[in-house]
Amino acid sequence: MPILKSFVKGAEDTCFPLQNLPYGIFRPTPAEHPRPGVAIGDYVFDLSAVARAGLFEGPLLCDSTCFFQESLNQFMSMGRPAWKEARETIQTLLSFDDGTLMENLDLEDTVFVPMSQVKMELPAVIGDYTDFYSSKEHATNLGIMFRGKDNALPVNWLHLPIGYHGRSSSIVVSGTDLVRPRGQTTPGEDGIPQYKASQLLDFELEMAVFIGPGNELGKPVSVENAHEQIFGFVLMNDWSARDLQKWEYVPLGPFLGKNFGTTISPWIITMDALEPFICKAPEQDPAPLAYLKDSSRITFDIPLSVAIKPEGEKESVITQSNFKYLYWTAAQQIAHHTVNGCNLRPGDLLASGTISGPDGSYGSMIELSWAGSKEVKLESGGGVRKFLQDGDEVIITACCKGDGYSIGFGSCAGKVLPAIAE
Amino acid sequence: MPILKSFVKGAEDTCFPLQNLPYGIFRPTPAEHPRPGVAIGDYVFDLSAVARAGLFEGPLLCDSTCFFQESLNQFMSMGRPAWKEARETIQTLLSFDDGTLMENLDLEDTVFVPMSQVKMELPAVIGDYTDFYSSKEHATNLGIMFRGKDNALPVNWLHLPIGYHGRSSSIVVSGTDLVRPRGQTTPGEDGIPQYKASQLLDFELEMAVFIGPGNELGKPVSVENAHEQIFGFVLMNDWSARDLQKWEYVPLGPFLGKNFGTTISPWIITMDALEPFICKAPEQDPAPLAYLKDSSRITFDIPLSVAIKPEGEKESVITQSNFKYLYWTAAQQIAHHTVNGCNLRPGDLLASGTISGPDGSYGSMIELSWAGSKEVKLESGGGVRKFLQDGDEVIITACCKGDGYSIGFGSCAGKVLPAIAE
Ligand SMILES: [Ca+2]
Ligand SMILES: [Ca+2]
Ligand SMILES: [Mg+2]
Ligand SMILES: [Mg+2]
Ligand code: NI
Repeated sequence: MPILKSFVKGAEDTCFPLQNLPYGIFRPTPAEHPRPGVAIGDYVFDLSAVARAGLFEGPLLCDSTCFFQESLNQFMSMGRPAWKEARETIQTLLSFDDGTLMENLDLEDTVFVPMSQVKMELPAVIGDYTDFYSSKEHATNLGIMFRGKDNALPVNWLHLPIGYHGRSSSIVVSGTDLVRPRGQTTPGEDGIPQYKASQLLDFELEMAVFIGPGNELGKPVSVENAHEQIFGFVLMNDWSARDLQKWEYVPLGPFLGKNFGTTISPWIITMDALEPFICKAPEQDPAPLAYLKDSSRITFDIPLSVAIKPEGEKESVITQSNFKYLYWTAAQQIAHHTVNGCNLRPGDLLASGTISGPDGSYGSMIELSWAGSKEVKLESGGGVRKFLQDGDEVIITACCKGDGYSIGFGSCAGKVLPAIAE
Repeated sequence: MPILKSFVKGAEDTCFPLQNLPYGIFRPTPAEHPRPGVAIGDYVFDLSAVARAGLFEGPLLCDSTCFFQESLNQFMSMGRPAWKEARETIQTLLSFDDGTLMENLDLEDTVFVPMSQVKMELPAVIGDYTDFYSSKEHATNLGIMFRGKDNALPVNWLHLPIGYHGRSSSIVVSGTDLVRPRGQTTPGEDGIPQYKASQLLDFELEMAVFIGPGNELGKPVSVENAHEQIFGFVLMNDWSARDLQKWEYVPLGPFLGKNFGTTISPWIITMDALEPFICKAPEQDPAPLAYLKDSSRITFDIPLSVAIKPEGEKESVITQSNFKYLYWTAAQQIAHHTVNGCNLRPGDLLASGTISGPDGSYGSMIELSWAGSKEVKLESGGGVRKFLQDGDEVIITACCKGDGYSIGFGSCAGKVLPAIAE
């Protein structure tokens, strides 16, 4: 297959070539309204300008207002046929062979904005955010630390993709600083809980799905139809305060240990872009119940990397993992989430859970430092870590290597600021 | 104090007299746009029409678009000074002594819509919904059932108001039917979980706070300032499938056992209306940490009642309780929720948790039937219950009796429909 090439200079050498075309919401300048765009090379392609110029000529998009919105929710709600139509139009307009933009220099000026200049925003209004727990290795590692080897996996773990509701309000876009949280921790010998800044601040390496059309309350999505619900994927850091979490989470689950902040990458990578990286998810034993039986076992080979950049130092990669290690697939998560009739809405976020894997692929500091029992060395300076220090920037990246091109996710980064004064 | 009286006929004999003035969102007819209104007697007072007529003349509201919105979020975000100004204007316009409306018959016709004719909607776009667990009696009852008398209360329970994130998408307004959920339940002797319609469907008697201005990420709300965040209260039924819940909830908390539906009453009763019913919350022992120390211990004496109305039968009251029994106050819940910097947004919903109390005030079927070990008789027909049957309508009501008037909450009702076919 000949390599698709864009007339946007150098795009094929970046993580955002013509094969990628991820969607995001950006402001060209801080004073301008947020609007939908697509990343191409070092530029953002302004979809509101493209739509205003009447260049979306397909039947589903020609009269749509979806690219005049300040979020992608409306576009997400339109479903795969509209997504396909948009991708075809955008790929054509940006391709080397098409003259539409090159022949109209005024237009070309309005539709391309240098990426270095834009301010990215959250891509959608996230009505509900769910966090799963779908890595067998991660669940096993935490189980060993907290309950011992013999009861490592919870008894229900192999039968259903465990998940819980997270906090939507504190989801922020990559680049947002994060204040170290304060809160209550387990009592010492005097039996009195302490109020203090978290001493065990952690990241969790995750990916998350943005939901497309959604479903009506009372009408489950079958596992076979679940892929139609997936608009695309982002990287996610589910910041976690292990000391707050430990004291609060029995019996109703994580709350203040998690809800002080969750960072996502700004660009949503579509299923179309990821198609070349489809692979099989791990075999499941025991076989799940029929409503969770996902015969395709479709997942994606997405290599993931986490780096820590201490204040004033260079960044050090501290762990690598891969989306393909996850035991429960996104389709199974969607089928399970809705089996009781729970409704998903366009723009809802479903996160994978911490992505650990075999051979020491650890998706969190608590695994890397084995509950603080050993130090993790930062290779490029900044010493060692058991958990995160103030000034540390955590940077998650992912890049799928295709045949002559790369599909990148950009970065999901955030820096830890000191806790507020007492 | 002389009794405030409205010129709206009979208002003083209803649950919506001039002292109440709860806010809601309604459609005058199904085809018309939702808009803000206030309940007065058997009418809804259309605030969009009042605003259009220029009758909000105070400095904060005269130029505001808050009553032209399809939700109350904007009005909620404006805070107590705006709420006070609105209440004064509305109370004046509706009072017996004011001639503005009575002298303008055309206007009078547009601003009053018979309540029997309107369709109520959710009062706000609920960004995040949190459910607490703040009744000591409820937590103790469930603890005895599941862990025995000696470990009834979780070890953290007396130190912090335990809470978890619920699902926003499935919050519905009173009158919406609810489909019995299906899902996975605990394995039998063969070790294989079952997939079936929930057999242990329950209600939970709760109340919930709508948040006003909210707080910025990273900036906690102190317990002293927490009341400024409370726009008002509604009744809530946190429908719960005990069999789904039991199998899934360890270790990350309730998920599918809860998120198939949550019903709230449409009218938000304000703090101003509830002021005459202020009373003291229970003493706390041990004393909570400083950030939770609520010296005022302000809560409200709100008598609550739950009835079941089986299909084709009369309703039977099956339990009564009171908001004042709750151990953790709304102010403490808000302070705790934000102590780690978590941000609340206008329109967020914070629910109390099941409101049980002393002397057999049980807020759920699982308590009334003591985990299904005894039958609850429906006095007006329909037999007995351990859990809810298809066709059962659950109706929560509340009414505070003042000196010559009542402050009512209206009703929070929903009917159970059969599970979908397999
Ligand atoms: Ca997580
Ligand atoms: Ca509840
Ligand atoms: Mg988090
Ligand atoms: Mg519920
Ligand atoms: Ni409308």
